[in-house]
Amino acid sequence: MSQSFDIAVIGATGTVGEALVQLLEERDFPVSTLHLLASGDSAGQSVPFRGKNLRVRALDGFDFSQVRLAFFAGSPAVTREYASRASEAGCSFIDLSGALSLDDAIRVVPEVNADVLAGLKAPYRLTSPCAPVVALATALAPLHPLLDLRQVCAMACLSVSTLGREGVNELARQTAELLNARPLEPRFFDRQAAFNLLAQVGEVDSEGHALLEKRMVSELKQMFRISALDVSATCVQAPVFFGDSLSVMLRSEKVIDLQAICAALDDAQGIERVESPDYPTVVGDAVGQDVVYVGRLRCGLGNPHELNLWIASDNVRKGAALNAVQLGELLIKDYLSKILT
Amino acid sequence: MSQSFDIAVIGATGTVGEALVQLLEERDFPVSTLHLLASGDSAGQSVPFRGKNLRVRALDGFDFSQVRLAFFAGSPAVTREYASRASEAGCSFIDLSGALSLDDAIRVVPEVNADVLAGLKAPYRLTSPCAPVVALATALAPLHPLLDLRQVCAMACLSVSTLGREGVNELARQTAELLNARPLEPRFFDRQAAFNLLAQVGEVDSEGHALLEKRMVSELKQMFRISALDVSATCVQAPVFFGDSLSVMLRSEKVIDLQAICAALDDAQGIERVESPDYPTVVGDAVGQDVVYVGRLRCGLGNPHELNLWIASDNVRKGAALNAVQLGELLIKDYLSKILT
Repeated sequence: MSQSFDIAVIGATGTVGEALVQLLEERDFPVSTLHLLASGDSAGQSVPFRGKNLRVRALDGFDFSQVRLAFFAGSPAVTREYASRASEAGCSFIDLSGALSLDDAIRVVPEVNADVLAGLKAPYRLTSPCAPVVALATALAPLHPLLDLRQVCAMACLSVSTLGREGVNELARQTAELLNARPLEPRFFDRQAAFNLLAQVGEVDSEGHALLEKRMVSELKQMFRISALDVSATCVQAPVFFGDSLSVMLRSEKVIDLQAICAALDDAQGIERVESPDYPTVVGDAVGQDVVYVGRLRCGLGNPHELNLWIASDNVRKGAALNAVQLGELLIKDYLSKILT
Repeated sequence: MSQSFDIAVIGATGTVGEALVQLLEERDFPVSTLHLLASGDSAGQSVPFRGKNLRVRALDGFDFSQVRLAFFAGSPAVTREYASRASEAGCSFIDLSGALSLDDAIRVVPEVNADVLAGLKAPYRLTSPCAPVVALATALAPLHPLLDLRQVCAMACLSVSTLGREGVNELARQTAELLNARPLEPRFFDRQAAFNLLAQVGEVDSEGHALLEKRMVSELKQMFRISALDVSATCVQAPVFFGDSLSVMLRSEKVIDLQAICAALDDAQGIERVESPDYPTVVGDAVGQDVVYVGRLRCGLGNPHELNLWIASDNVRKGAALNAVQLGELLIKDYLSKILT
């Protein structure tokens, strides 16, 4: 990649936005000018990039025609307000908020469905799927050709960083209060989250489904292009700071060949398989790493059509910022750079 | 219950054994003489019961013909060594260790399959199922007649008290070390368990299944008398002190009637249903309570044959000690008292 591009990062001061800027630097992303933008009070702060402190400017009034690619790492409301302005100015974007419909901004994980980009035209409107889907899709991609996938049942235990810095701070505060035997007054969560599991993440609709659960089902179906794929998803809030853990049960029409499954995972990009009786966890394995960890591979008890697995992934990196940056790299290398030349 | 019986509790100094003795007192269990027994070093300790401190005696050499009913709340090895001695002495027993096969000591939860007792003869050899099964079976029992149950997929997030007092102490110690930014040296667990999720509880066999997962599958099948019931189970170790949380996905041949399901749960014994958007958790709801909490009832996304639910239950009480005591009460009232008269 000899060309470099002017890029914008919206929501640069949040957990994911900060990780994104750090990854742009770490991975030597071909940036000429990096525009850091935020709405509201965050404008005016500085974020380090390539040895300088870049000032975060107000998103309002930003001229998107100055940049070729924008990362939307702010709230869904910000994406909803500014994404069309970016497109209209000819700026491709990668949204991380999930605000846009499947049709409006297609979900892409490079290891899973990079080929869909060939059917699209600039300016690109893409979404990095929600973190549990990035992890699950990355693990499923190499298995998919070996399975005649009929059913996916996933329980995702999400870390408090899913809810941003406030979630992290509140788990730390609650834990300290409890260990010091002080009375607990929940603030950010509606109850004790420390040493507890909350059965839902975010609000639920009138039928009881949380937004993230609906995203898991619809985004997986889109990415694997199986509209009839039978997916059940539950998201639970775990007292864990960083990293998502998923327990997954798959059913295949074909009998599972566990050796072939393991070999396919070992050969796959972006995956680290952990052999039983060891298993991966978010703390110690996945957090801070770019790969998705997969373990506890086993067939069903007496059911050779069932495959169970456990996934541990860094929700802020591979689950969000890293996937978006990888997608940006792919977009620049195979698409945006070719438009210029 | 006007009669009272001489009873033995084996493993009286463990987490479950202590809860059991406390429940015998709280529930005014018809005990004449209570024999507290333990193997190894625990003999010689005292446990409070009805205002006195009862001395725990050595199990070795105990004459089981002195008692009509024994609770085995010690390790599986202790049950394996002494259960047959109890039976041979005419003493009925309720095992809480899960050491004995399904055929050797039938699994019973009073709310689920009390009727099986009618087909048995004294001395009774019974097992209180593992805690996640007690919780799950209690929740399923009232639903079963409304569903044509085809599939059960359960992910159980178990508290560290599943592993006894050492598990509880180690989670507290690890958490304090981490909050005080001291280097962590795991002792009881093989890695950091605080602020982390461990993908398996206990050792796994050569095929990757943990003993508790195998118990969940086989015990559920026995209790619902559906040998072809399609059950998938995963047990995960959560950084929670007390209480088990289960995320459960059910499939029924019939379309789910969610209103009827809710009504059946509301009418059922031993269950507290929590209406969405609220939901139950172990801390604040289930722990210390005798009932099993059920919430997050919802159909599948676009699948009216799917029912999802969340269960929170006190693993030491209803999951173990309380269920065993309730089973003892049932046994005495309907069976053992009739043998005497």
